Amino acid sequence: MKRAVVLVSGGLDSTTTLAIARAQDFECYALSFDYGQRHKIELEAARNIADALGAQEHRVVQIDPQIFAGSALTDDIAVPKSRSEAEISQDIPVTYVTARNTVFLSCALAWAEGLGAFDIFIGVNALDYSGYPDCRPEFIRAFAEMANLGTKAGAGGARFHIHTPLAEMTKADIIRQALELGVDLSLTHSCYDPTADGRACGLCDSCQLRRKGFREAGVTDRIAYAA
Amino acid sequence: MKRAVVLVSGGLDSTTTLAIARAQDFECYALSFDYGQRHKIELEAARNIADALGAQEHRVVQIDPQIFAGSALTDDIAVPKSRSEAEISQDIPVTYVTARNTVFLSCALAWAEGLGAFDIFIGVNALDYSGYPDCRPEFIRAFAEMANLGTKAGAGGARFHIHTPLAEMTKADIIRQALELGVDLSLTHSCYDPTADGRACGLCDSCQLRRKGFREAGVTDRIAYAA
Repeated sequence: MKRAVVLVSGGLDSTTTLAIARAQDFECYALSFDYGQRHKIELEAARNIADALGAQEHRVVQIDPQIFAGSALTDDIAVPKSRSEAEISQDIPVTYVTARNTVFLSCALAWAEGLGAFDIFIGVNALDYSGYPDCRPEFIRAFAEMANLGTKAGAGGARFHIHTPLAEMTKADIIRQALELGVDLSLTHSCYDPTADGRACGLCDSCQLRRKGFREAGVTDRIAYAA
Repeated sequence: MKRAVVLVSGGLDSTTTLAIARAQDFECYALSFDYGQRHKIELEAARNIADALGAQEHRVVQIDPQIFAGSALTDDIAVPKSRSEAEISQDIPVTYVTARNTVFLSCALAWAEGLGAFDIFIGVNALDYSGYPDCRPEFIRAFAEMANLGTKAGAGGARFHIHTPLAEMTKADIIRQALELGVDLSLTHSCYDPTADGRACGLCDSCQLRRKGFREAGVTDRIAYAA
């Protein structure tokens, strides 16, 4: 059975990605990050999801928050709320975390090489997304190229593949795909700024993209919202 | 004054690299990593060096050792000793740490972007080195390309430069360059497997490359060796 490292944040996209990797018969090593994010509740979601979807192992890796600074996801900066679709899709928002996917994929690569895994799955998406540069296909391609040059396995001729099965899907597509694969989406957590009792705020960009996706898919979202 | 992030391990190469960055008038942000290496004494050396060379700030970032596995630098695997020059230059040794420079540079990139710094210095060297794939110029080029695609700054048109001033130097060249810049090389630490009281073993690949460099440069190495 081929091994894959799958980045699992606890959200809709990475959960669907894990389900897809499992459906492709990969033995999955789920990887989550504790990087000082204010929505740390997603790590609990990630653990439940890794269990429910039959990951071989789940690791939560600590990322030293010293390297990230100035993001609304990690610092005392307000998470934008109730923005219009046009606003969400326009600029790179303050929830951008510097080089986050580069750091996450680098850690995934280090673990993968140690495991003898050459497949890494990440749930990036360039349609219904927040405009983060490190979700774009050209970034993913450049990362794979670098990975093949910067590892012992790559220098020895192995090829790392960075799978982005959601790249071309809308949020509604992702939801439909997850349901087809039997995923319980009530386990997932998307909100950037959850309430103390763990409900989604309903108003941040991530909540809005999620709700729009469920609406368009014609499916009821069973997680609890504060607004 | 332009800012640069400089990877400083406490060794000969990264110290010389910091001295070069300072000589090029960069305001230097020194970055070291605690990744569970057995030669943790190098972190103390790094702090002294950052001070002595006038770094603006020095951060020691924790890397979760869960992501690295199976290296003689982190695990209970013997560090090779007394290998011949031919053996040292032949294969990628067991001291290889999976994707280490990818992880280190990714963290440097995240910090740099937060600082508004577009210059990152790393003391990799492809002549008198241990054969690590992530020291090669083609890897460094690929990393820079990826960095420009995967960051908000890069997406906005900024260009990150990964400086490798030692790339074409022999160890003897590096030592001469350091002395020309007035660096006190007795502050540096190179050994992979130091004694409990902090002396260099004298026999690991890194000690041997260092000693050969001092010999060829005709300079006395003032650090303490156990053998």
